[in-house]
Amino acid sequence: MSADHPFLYQLFLIFVCAKLGGEIFERLRLPAVLGEILAGVIVGPYGLGLVVPTGAIKDVAEVGAIFLLFTVGLEIQPKDLLSVGPTSLYVALAGIAVPFVFGFSYMLLTQHSKPEATFVAAAMVATSVGVTARILGDLDLLHTQAARIILGAAVFDDILGLILLGVVGGLVSGNGGFWVQTLITSLEAVAFALIMMFYAPRVVRRIEPRLERMSMPNAPLIIALAICLGLSFAAAQIKMAAIVGAFFAGLAFAEHSPRWNLRPRVLAINDFLAPFFFFSMGAQLDIRVFDRSLFLSAIVVFLLAFLSKLIGCGLPVLRFGLKTAARVGMGMVPRGEVGLIVALSGLQMNAISERAYALVIFMTGVTTLVAPPLLKLLFQSERQPVPVGLEERPSAM
Amino acid sequence: MSADHPFLYQLFLIFVCAKLGGEIFERLRLPAVLGEILAGVIVGPYGLGLVVPTGAIKDVAEVGAIFLLFTVGLEIQPKDLLSVGPTSLYVALAGIAVPFVFGFSYMLLTQHSKPEATFVAAAMVATSVGVTARILGDLDLLHTQAARIILGAAVFDDILGLILLGVVGGLVSGNGGFWVQTLITSLEAVAFALIMMFYAPRVVRRIEPRLERMSMPNAPLIIALAICLGLSFAAAQIKMAAIVGAFFAGLAFAEHSPRWNLRPRVLAINDFLAPFFFFSMGAQLDIRVFDRSLFLSAIVVFLLAFLSKLIGCGLPVLRFGLKTAARVGMGMVPRGEVGLIVALSGLQMNAISERAYALVIFMTGVTTLVAPPLLKLLFQSERQPVPVGLEERPSAM
Repeated sequence: MSADHPFLYQLFLIFVCAKLGGEIFERLRLPAVLGEILAGVIVGPYGLGLVVPTGAIKDVAEVGAIFLLFTVGLEIQPKDLLSVGPTSLYVALAGIAVPFVFGFSYMLLTQHSKPEATFVAAAMVATSVGVTARILGDLDLLHTQAARIILGAAVFDDILGLILLGVVGGLVSGNGGFWVQTLITSLEAVAFALIMMFYAPRVVRRIEPRLERMSMPNAPLIIALAICLGLSFAAAQIKMAAIVGAFFAGLAFAEHSPRWNLRPRVLAINDFLAPFFFFSMGAQLDIRVFDRSLFLSAIVVFLLAFLSKLIGCGLPVLRFGLKTAARVGMGMVPRGEVGLIVALSGLQMNAISERAYALVIFMTGVTTLVAPPLLKLLFQSERQPVPVGLEERPSAM
Repeated sequence: MSADHPFLYQLFLIFVCAKLGGEIFERLRLPAVLGEILAGVIVGPYGLGLVVPTGAIKDVAEVGAIFLLFTVGLEIQPKDLLSVGPTSLYVALAGIAVPFVFGFSYMLLTQHSKPEATFVAAAMVATSVGVTARILGDLDLLHTQAARIILGAAVFDDILGLILLGVVGGLVSGNGGFWVQTLITSLEAVAFALIMMFYAPRVVRRIEPRLERMSMPNAPLIIALAICLGLSFAAAQIKMAAIVGAFFAGLAFAEHSPRWNLRPRVLAINDFLAPFFFFSMGAQLDIRVFDRSLFLSAIVVFLLAFLSKLIGCGLPVLRFGLKTAARVGMGMVPRGEVGLIVALSGLQMNAISERAYALVIFMTGVTTLVAPPLLKLLFQSERQPVPVGLEERPSAM
């Protein structure tokens, strides 16, 4: 059946299976992303073997990840960052630091290499606030103090997580000592992020009139796409992950996104390409690596990921009472696409093993499944019909 | 430079070069498509050799062609067809028949095989009305009788051209005698077209409420994309070109496109993917095949393509006077993406040689370059500041 047109065949089958998985999960009120990944596990080479993604599909999946992160970047405006209160900033910082330290220590203690420990720890860092925002939105609780802190912290969280991926990617390929290299690549990544957030939008503003005078239709979209591809390539060249470049490209255009109507159009490209990414992610997960010892490790990593966010993000708001601390902490527990992308980058750079990759997928899936019911429980007392005070932060998840 | 990330490197470079070529041509008031193709000729393997498209890029280019034709199909509503007057229909039919007969006869007379003759003739058939519509729009002449006839005929022209490609594709791979095979595949293609135009929209209408109740966001877009990919694959499986399936998928959703806001979102995907298609088209053109004899052939093919449309489309409207006949005929002269896609399909099916491919590209380019100034000349007497009476028909070109 697939002999003649393997690419078209895979394109069709993967798209349909991924979206079917997503739809089923949506109906179960679970994150669609997990359904798309599960479709890859089931239909992919380690499952039924109906689709063994070709090189071209993997390339398409990579472009899917690039557009996914471009979309995430497009949603974060520098002014959002400046308006986020110091509380959210502390929550974000502690919510990055604690999981990273926990993850890194555990991986080192269990005899993994430093690069592998770094990748897994980095994948434990980034909250995916989409799940939380949706639950709080459904419960009409986006106006609560805890919700505002969570949504604010999530903005920082994405940026810090991506900077961390830049650092980690640089580390794996660098020479020199581990800590020296860490310092250098951290500075590079932070400088890159600051330039893209504060300098690049000014450049965009300056070329704006020229852009709008260009002869081609949709010039702003075309230029944004070109810069997204260019920065992705540049990031890959300097050994950061390509998606870090795409994310920063998104930041540069975030300010102009509403005026140029970029977001819905980039989202359409995303709707088409992202399923290939999530499906491929599942297709690369060999469930047979889950022997007894790996399963135990996975449980430990999940618990560390869970507790470290709960504690890390709860502590900075403990002064508002234990209940608020628990709510904020729990709201930050779900991990998502950024962590998954970090793990996949690690796998593709040969920095982490299939077993470590499986750990991360497990951790991501379980945090996302476990947090929602607990979150509902924690917010239950608050539930009352009040108009929504804060817009739901749209998320790629 | 490109060693580490050939795919990302090519993605970036091709996108930028193609769009740059398009922008330069737009500024010269020439069709952007030709600029994108020329970028492929210049930068590609037969030119500077900066980009030698990998298999994955060729796959992306194929998806680009699929979305291009999906967009064309989305713009044609069955009710447009029914409302087109008989004059436009005759113009379209004669404008298909005369160039095909001219092209087919010439190719056979010059010792080409029947399949090759069929492909080249089929590529001479489809008018790209985008160029004409733009010129008439610029001159504020879309309200004239000639313009209305041209725009009406163009709707039919696309459909007939794509049916013809279905037939031609089927022919090349079929068994049995040439004429028997022609009959069978013609019937298949016409049946396919009729079903997609008149039955499929009814199915879409029936599943509409269920679609809008689906849990995933953007369900209509997702379903449309899935069906586009599925029909493309199906068409390729039954040996029609994949793009024929994509075009018919577009027809099925044309009626619902405004309600579901499909077109702008599919266009965004198109904006990203189509440049890879046009660039690849140029990259596969070896300009060194243009020796003296091929150049003479190319001139003849161009003249046949030019005169056959002028005569074929002019004759049915001769009763409105010679001036109107000349205007309608000239308006139908420019060829475009459909012809190019036919030629590329032929090349990929190994049905036509690199030389025949070069003939088609030459013919397409020159008809598109020659027609606009002549069209302006023919309409000059009519020019007067009148409000535009007919909406410009948007085109993928």
